[in-house]
Amino acid sequence: MRPKPLSGFPEFLPSGRIVEQAVLDSLRETFELHGFASIETRAVETMDALTRKGEITKEVYVVRRLHAAEGESGDDLGLHFDLTVPFARYVLENAGHLVFPLRRYQIQKVWRGERPQEGRYREFTQADIDIVGENTLAAHHDIEVALVMLEALEALHTRFGVPPVVMHVNNRKLAEGFYRGLGVEDHMAVLQRVDKLDKIGPDAVRTLLVNEVGLSVADADKCLELATICTADTSFVERVRALGVEHPLLDEGLAALADVVAAASVAVPGRLVADLKIARGLDYYTGTVYETEMAGFESLGSICSGGRYDALASDGKRTWPGVGISVGVSRILVPLIAKGALTSSRSVPTCVLVAVDAEDTRGAAMATAARLRARGISCEVAPKADKFGKQIRYADRRGIPYVWFSDGSVKDIRSGEQVPADADTWFPPDADLRPLVAPRG
Amino acid sequence: MRPKPLSGFPEFLPSGRIVEQAVLDSLRETFELHGFASIETRAVETMDALTRKGEITKEVYVVRRLHAAEGESGDDLGLHFDLTVPFARYVLENAGHLVFPLRRYQIQKVWRGERPQEGRYREFTQADIDIVGENTLAAHHDIEVALVMLEALEALHTRFGVPPVVMHVNNRKLAEGFYRGLGVEDHMAVLQRVDKLDKIGPDAVRTLLVNEVGLSVADADKCLELATICTADTSFVERVRALGVEHPLLDEGLAALADVVAAASVAVPGRLVADLKIARGLDYYTGTVYETEMAGFESLGSICSGGRYDALASDGKRTWPGVGISVGVSRILVPLIAKGALTSSRSVPTCVLVAVDAEDTRGAAMATAARLRARGISCEVAPKADKFGKQIRYADRRGIPYVWFSDGSVKDIRSGEQVPADADTWFPPDADLRPLVAPRG
Repeated sequence: MRPKPLSGFPEFLPSGRIVEQAVLDSLRETFELHGFASIETRAVETMDALTRKGEITKEVYVVRRLHAAEGESGDDLGLHFDLTVPFARYVLENAGHLVFPLRRYQIQKVWRGERPQEGRYREFTQADIDIVGENTLAAHHDIEVALVMLEALEALHTRFGVPPVVMHVNNRKLAEGFYRGLGVEDHMAVLQRVDKLDKIGPDAVRTLLVNEVGLSVADADKCLELATICTADTSFVERVRALGVEHPLLDEGLAALADVVAAASVAVPGRLVADLKIARGLDYYTGTVYETEMAGFESLGSICSGGRYDALASDGKRTWPGVGISVGVSRILVPLIAKGALTSSRSVPTCVLVAVDAEDTRGAAMATAARLRARGISCEVAPKADKFGKQIRYADRRGIPYVWFSDGSVKDIRSGEQVPADADTWFPPDADLRPLVAPRG
Repeated sequence: MRPKPLSGFPEFLPSGRIVEQAVLDSLRETFELHGFASIETRAVETMDALTRKGEITKEVYVVRRLHAAEGESGDDLGLHFDLTVPFARYVLENAGHLVFPLRRYQIQKVWRGERPQEGRYREFTQADIDIVGENTLAAHHDIEVALVMLEALEALHTRFGVPPVVMHVNNRKLAEGFYRGLGVEDHMAVLQRVDKLDKIGPDAVRTLLVNEVGLSVADADKCLELATICTADTSFVERVRALGVEHPLLDEGLAALADVVAAASVAVPGRLVADLKIARGLDYYTGTVYETEMAGFESLGSICSGGRYDALASDGKRTWPGVGISVGVSRILVPLIAKGALTSSRSVPTCVLVAVDAEDTRGAAMATAARLRARGISCEVAPKADKFGKQIRYADRRGIPYVWFSDGSVKDIRSGEQVPADADTWFPPDADLRPLVAPRG
């Protein structure tokens, strides 16, 4: 009886996994080039830590021992649903052994018990970068994390053909200052309604702002106008100014966002825009906020999001402000791999299959393979001393490009070309050494 | 309030994580050089799949959604406790898309709800290799997986100073044939008692064999003698023959084990012994079995175990026999890192800190860093335009070896030597490019 896949728990075949490994290696390389150190946290947190933010509790997976002892609390642990809550706990737990500002990346699976649908999984891989300071954290890090993440995503685009992205950035202070400039007290009430713009449209948002928050139609329209401003350069500043609202917090937000956009337009032209409708819903960000769309896959929603927290963690005496961005690796890769848009040139790391003439010469074939491996060439020895045609077929079914014969020759099974070769000096073309990850085509 | 660590869920500080990453990268490199393809499976399996082997159920962590809907079964998923059960399910589920023999490695966390103690964790990382055939699998793969794993562990020894290991190998057919040759019907009953030899000693085992299994004292003594045979070469065959027991299955086991030992004594001298007391308790192995001790850490138990299954999986029509070995990465690393026996030369990947003269020249420092990164050198830009002494201290606290100054010079902060340098051509010594992982001292 063949087991069925579990909905919401995607798994890759070996060739898809090679794509995922290449992507994760590339992300790691970029993060490490920028001095981010890896951490991994345990999969479980206490339910207390996980449910501190009321909103998310419905999505938590609770974990308990099947044969928990009598009186043993069964419901005190849950699987983490993001990497921010665990990181905040890790910072607090280990603060005495860490140096700040701390730059960390974290690539792990997370779990959410939500209904599976395209772009939403119950188990998925995230890759986060954060910079966390002790009590203070300079504003230039808001620019830095955006540039690092865009560089990481651009590397996926140029190396593997992952579609290009555009990061949409806003600043909570800008919106809050604007609403306060209009005389609004409860700016979160406005923010939460404007956040529905894409879903319900401007007319419905206007109605909510007037009926539920008590704005005048004119003020509601100004809020809507603000939300439509989206520019690839710093011209958004003038457009906001033209709306005639003034507040010190607005000035602060405009300046901070202008700095991010100006830096990005030099470093990664076309990849970052100021988009004043970005709110990040109920997340507890306090300054810059980021969302990211992947070209042609806008329906997936944001594939890479984050923002600045005034206090990622706090122990009462000290606070740790942070800024970070998280890329949804599974959200990007599961659809791309399923559609065949990204593939690997073979399903195994093997570059050379060493043929076996007869079982009693297997030792010689193993010795040849060892010589090739000593120089970094991935090899397998044929599992059976079959006819050579069968051994070549073994390689072909796996996409292994070369077969090595005991007469000291190597055959490129794609072209059929067979040439004499020495196992201590022969080297495949660079493109054949490892599986190649690229768009199908 | 500082959160406390959870017993049994080890986490590393950033420098320990660098050690772990180096070890995992090295394992992956060896496995891939031998043509093993990576797979990852979801963290959860159905409870049905997890509890098929009665023994293990007490250790399973059950997973359920906190707000599971009315009537929704809450207890049908559990966290995997090894990587063999998930792999068997994966093979069965995807058999139509896989090619056999399939060589796979799998490096993931697993969870067991057992009482934490040294060498036993509730969450830990395993690295498994297996080779699985469709209906048949040649015996030479029993030799191969042992040699690949020993090569992988030897690389950890020579690269990082992980203590050397000795793999202890036996064959279930050898013991079964021997017991059957003595006229024993229930060979498992004998095996399970002999398996207690290290724990309770020979006299107690003899008593059990006589009183519980009904052996004569002479036969019980022969079983005990068999269990004491441990040789680094094939001389164990003669010593078994000298006990005067005969059975076709014994011949088969002796020949298979002799093949493994003979091959290993050439390929990895001193690293593998025939040890006829190895039984692997209640695991369902059917031929070769492996256990591994790490020098100086024998009290941890086996750090690397496995064996051959006649049927890793079966769908009623086809069976998939397999042979595999699993290394307990956490079991090796958690004590070594905690004791400081293995350390990293720094707590960050960063090789160069680019100093900042003043905040308005941060852009120039970022440009310098980008030029270094373009050639694979990990860089950070100083977070603050502090006095240079403070910026050097920032590097020093993290173990970053070099500080780059805007006058076009680079300082090795360990020696104090400062030399003129060009960001497009300067390169650090190989030993400084990445954190170095080595035994302390």
